[in-house]
Amino acid sequence: MVRVLICGDLAWAHKECEELFQGVADVVRMDSPNRAEFFAGLQPGGKYDGIVGIYRHNISADYIGIFDKELVAKLPASVKWIAHNGAGYDQIDVAACKERGITVSNTPGAVDDATATTALYLMISALRHFAHAEQTLRAGKWKSLHKAGDAHDLTGRTLAILGLGGIGLRLAELAHAFPMRIVYHSRSKNAQAPEWCEYFGADRLDEMLAQTDVLSVHVPLRKDTEGMVDEKMIRKLKKGAVIVNTARGKVIDEPALIRALEDGHLGGIGLDVYPNEPEVNPRFLEFPNATLLPHMGTETLDSQKKMEVRALTNLRDYLTKGQGSDIIPEHKQ
Amino acid sequence: MVRVLICGDLAWAHKECEELFQGVADVVRMDSPNRAEFFAGLQPGGKYDGIVGIYRHNISADYIGIFDKELVAKLPASVKWIAHNGAGYDQIDVAACKERGITVSNTPGAVDDATATTALYLMISALRHFAHAEQTLRAGKWKSLHKAGDAHDLTGRTLAILGLGGIGLRLAELAHAFPMRIVYHSRSKNAQAPEWCEYFGADRLDEMLAQTDVLSVHVPLRKDTEGMVDEKMIRKLKKGAVIVNTARGKVIDEPALIRALEDGHLGGIGLDVYPNEPEVNPRFLEFPNATLLPHMGTETLDSQKKMEVRALTNLRDYLTKGQGSDIIPEHKQ
Repeated sequence: MVRVLICGDLAWAHKECEELFQGVADVVRMDSPNRAEFFAGLQPGGKYDGIVGIYRHNISADYIGIFDKELVAKLPASVKWIAHNGAGYDQIDVAACKERGITVSNTPGAVDDATATTALYLMISALRHFAHAEQTLRAGKWKSLHKAGDAHDLTGRTLAILGLGGIGLRLAELAHAFPMRIVYHSRSKNAQAPEWCEYFGADRLDEMLAQTDVLSVHVPLRKDTEGMVDEKMIRKLKKGAVIVNTARGKVIDEPALIRALEDGHLGGIGLDVYPNEPEVNPRFLEFPNATLLPHMGTETLDSQKKMEVRALTNLRDYLTKGQGSDIIPEHKQ
Repeated sequence: MVRVLICGDLAWAHKECEELFQGVADVVRMDSPNRAEFFAGLQPGGKYDGIVGIYRHNISADYIGIFDKELVAKLPASVKWIAHNGAGYDQIDVAACKERGITVSNTPGAVDDATATTALYLMISALRHFAHAEQTLRAGKWKSLHKAGDAHDLTGRTLAILGLGGIGLRLAELAHAFPMRIVYHSRSKNAQAPEWCEYFGADRLDEMLAQTDVLSVHVPLRKDTEGMVDEKMIRKLKKGAVIVNTARGKVIDEPALIRALEDGHLGGIGLDVYPNEPEVNPRFLEFPNATLLPHMGTETLDSQKKMEVRALTNLRDYLTKGQGSDIIPEHKQ
């Protein structure tokens, strides 16, 4: 029987994993404490020799590092599929995988609901100043520092979604219930977007930003999206606008963001992600209207399990059908 | 010209106040620093003598106390209308007003959106453990204490609304977008409720509670609702359920709530209101999964202004049409 490698913890889907691969593949668990021992295991005759597919979770980076060019080069030629658990796969060198004929899949839809809910929470907190109000209460000061006039309803305000994929689309639905006005910018129009989602192409991006009360970031981290929300983009937002980021920290130019909070151009921020997690720039802790979560976007029992099952299923489908779902877009280019 | 009394701050609608009463009434501002001086002003020849209507905001209680039986008895016979700014009017002795032929109005619809948004925020935080996650991050510990398995998506869970008035109905709409399953209990069925809001009468209340993931409280504080969410009701909730309260603190039996958090029957709470505001029982600060806001339900520029304009309009309509809107239900009994 072929062998697959579970690289990173399965927290919730142990039983499902057993069922999915029964009679299909032998499941080997990655238990190397460091990169060197992992590489040793990949050698001919090593404990991971002959694996054809890998289930990967970011937690494995704590032991063996990310799937960079070096690591991908060490994988045996038998490896044909990496089923990543997560929407963002910036810890995998996709070009190196393509070069070696390895297909990468992720788990896009499984995280939409939990991540969009996180963005909604951050947006409410930033517009209503709730996180700071709780800090004031917990400091024994009730709401003495709070001015109702600084807080705003969501209803009727304009939410601009940067990157209208599954998560952005889900947030659009939730915010539309208020209703907020929903506008978006993506490389191209999303055919699945409902008619009340108004598209602004690159030629009309400035026009969109000038009308934006809340900018919510939902683009994946790629070379061309790193620092995409820069000084120029931030300054084109309406004064007092709020930025929410549940995608990746490096999509925003952090110094530019901090400057815009310092001089009051931005009315607030809601961040779930940071450029160098788990580090958080201590400057953020000083802004009263900053709501700061420790990358909780997908942290629910429901979505963690959904993601594990989905990644495992993608890997199993490759073995049984020759093709799994959720192949990342880079393979289509 | 007749005289009306502004009792409590107008924060946002000064211009609107001037316009509304121009040629209709002289506007007198309550500026008494204490109850005794207020009572003196109400005497014949006093500075508030002859007023026919009162605009009232809870902030006035800081100076002259609440509109209890004693205060209502001191009002001159000329007073016919009290236009209260706020949805909850538990600071007014309604029976005493009725006895003296004074009509009381409130501002129900104006607060629906802002308060329901607050309940939604508290519900997300309690199900996802967000408030605690932010405390952990701010303590420099990232999310080391957090277990994803304790957190839940809203989608597919059952939200039970206790009291389906304007605020409850608005919350129902926002939560239905996920969708959550929406059930409710009120004294009677709400004819305006959409078909996906399932009604449970008193005879089926226990049945509703046993299915409830989140109980959100939206009944006004009255004698018959004080302590309504008691030990018995709390214990009938599903284990791990969450309680959200944006109505009034005294609707919940606080010791019973604390016991249910201590022994783990409840999975979390989200509170915006407390029995003795601005006091917060320090016990609440110790529960990791308690999200605690300092009564921010209606605190947005938008709704504060909406409420002021609406209360003032109710008072003006009484003067010009003989009848204002938003007369509280007790007058219909």
